[in-house]
Amino acid sequence: MSEAVVSTRIRLARNLKEYPFPNRISEDQAKEVADRVISALSDMDKKFNRIDMSELSQAQRLALVEQHLISPEFVEKRPYRVLLLSDDNSVSIMLNEEDHIRLQVIKPGLDLEEAYKIADEIDDCLSKKLNLAFSERLGYLTQCPTNLGTALRASVMLHLPALQKSASISRIASNLSKLGLTIRGIYGEGSNSSGALYQLSNQVTLGISEKAAVENLKNIANQLISQEIKTRDKMLKDIEVQDKVCRSLGILKTAKLISHTEAMELISNVRLGVSGKLLDTLTLDSIDKLTVEIQPANIMIKHGEEMSVRERDIKRADILRDSFN
Amino acid sequence: MSEAVVSTRIRLARNLKEYPFPNRISEDQAKEVADRVISALSDMDKKFNRIDMSELSQAQRLALVEQHLISPEFVEKRPYRVLLLSDDNSVSIMLNEEDHIRLQVIKPGLDLEEAYKIADEIDDCLSKKLNLAFSERLGYLTQCPTNLGTALRASVMLHLPALQKSASISRIASNLSKLGLTIRGIYGEGSNSSGALYQLSNQVTLGISEKAAVENLKNIANQLISQEIKTRDKMLKDIEVQDKVCRSLGILKTAKLISHTEAMELISNVRLGVSGKLLDTLTLDSIDKLTVEIQPANIMIKHGEEMSVRERDIKRADILRDSFN
Repeated sequence: MSEAVVSTRIRLARNLKEYPFPNRISEDQAKEVADRVISALSDMDKKFNRIDMSELSQAQRLALVEQHLISPEFVEKRPYRVLLLSDDNSVSIMLNEEDHIRLQVIKPGLDLEEAYKIADEIDDCLSKKLNLAFSERLGYLTQCPTNLGTALRASVMLHLPALQKSASISRIASNLSKLGLTIRGIYGEGSNSSGALYQLSNQVTLGISEKAAVENLKNIANQLISQEIKTRDKMLKDIEVQDKVCRSLGILKTAKLISHTEAMELISNVRLGVSGKLLDTLTLDSIDKLTVEIQPANIMIKHGEEMSVRERDIKRADILRDSFN
Repeated sequence: MSEAVVSTRIRLARNLKEYPFPNRISEDQAKEVADRVISALSDMDKKFNRIDMSELSQAQRLALVEQHLISPEFVEKRPYRVLLLSDDNSVSIMLNEEDHIRLQVIKPGLDLEEAYKIADEIDDCLSKKLNLAFSERLGYLTQCPTNLGTALRASVMLHLPALQKSASISRIASNLSKLGLTIRGIYGEGSNSSGALYQLSNQVTLGISEKAAVENLKNIANQLISQEIKTRDKMLKDIEVQDKVCRSLGILKTAKLISHTEAMELISNVRLGVSGKLLDTLTLDSIDKLTVEIQPANIMIKHGEEMSVRERDIKRADILRDSFN
């Protein structure tokens, strides 16, 4: 199944009862929130690296978004924003984002249970040590009412080139909303799909248990994946598709200059070719890592924050040639 | 210099005094013409293979045009058309084309003197054995008055991607006509340039000696070539051009499907890259041979005359992948 799944993500939103939500919090209060959360987590076996957002450059912050470690909203300078990051980057905790605590667990492939288990352990620790804003009637209280209840967002990042090409995505999207799910571009709400990557997530957090929400998402994800794989098998028999897939690798191996948009499209084609055993190049896992590496801010934090678009396009082509040759 | 020159060609037109020009000749007379020329040539050391055009399929005839061994006009079925071809294909003699005898010598690279020397030897043999149509005042008599005089057409096939890109070709073309020369696409009069290949040839045959015409063509060819090479050196420093050149090779190495027009363009880019030492792939000579091999009729005579355009596009991609990998 992994041909069509990149990663799984569980996100929990939590707030401390004693403090106003971050949109009306003072600098001092925000500091107190951060300190209390950090202290609460200090007893855990899992250790976190502390990153103060105010100390990062714009490119460094954007690079974290590209790596899916923080939300686009967390890039904005606001009182006492701190990121706690596990060594392997699988757990990231944003402090003073839209809620006091935004806890995220990412796992490669489709692994909702394991991701939820880890998130739940951290949540248990937080619940024990902190006075979390919770109401019997509404569940966890969050700044935005759409998160009230479980305050859980489970999502799966899918690679759906065949469903995209067959234009099934928009039909699927409208059916999903009836099932309490949503599908959108890879950088969350309002973002476009790039390289046929889509994020499927639950939309309903009220009146449904965490378990049920995760189970529901898993079922739908599996259905989408098998639909994608079936469409792919048919599609890859078409010589025009084979031509496009093979040429994409040819271009990635040789280009001296490549834009972000073109690179995402070519990589998506190659990922399709590898999954369909038409190409024998990098593994799907390496391709997915490369997809992050060639994002603009990730190039800049590695190779120079003053780079122009043209310089990035050259460097991106260098990275891709090195990787695929 | 050879980076910008593909081949040199000398063509002489001759007619037998005793017979009407081919446009008004009878089948019997045309046969007599052919027999007399073949008999006249039989004493030469150089041996020729006889090919009766009426015995060839349409694809076989078109393939000879693509190989520059016959003129497009010679494809048409007309009385007793015979092609005499030396073993190495460097000499071809069309009998009963527009004139009774169209003698052509092709040499790779820029080699006008040698090509003329060979043509002249054959012409001497013909003159000795046959009564050629010649007038003291007009020189050799030909069906079309534009060939009267020397009836010599000397031409050089040039690869001019840099001058084409810099849009200098049309300016050059209008200057050339003042010098008694013309530049046009590779399949002669009225044909378009394909893959930045151009044919430079003399236009004036009256009031100028063979030697002077050849000398004049050589001088202008050398000027054009050095202009092309200078422009190329500058052009190849541009990363966008490098990108186009490198990608072209990447696509030729991977495509599963490729049209004639696209293949010609990509091969032209690769030829430019090889000549500029940006690419290390086939030699210029192998590239030039490949340019003929991937022409539609040449694919068909090798792989099946019933091939559709799509089947040819697939076979063309196969040939190119095999050649460049």
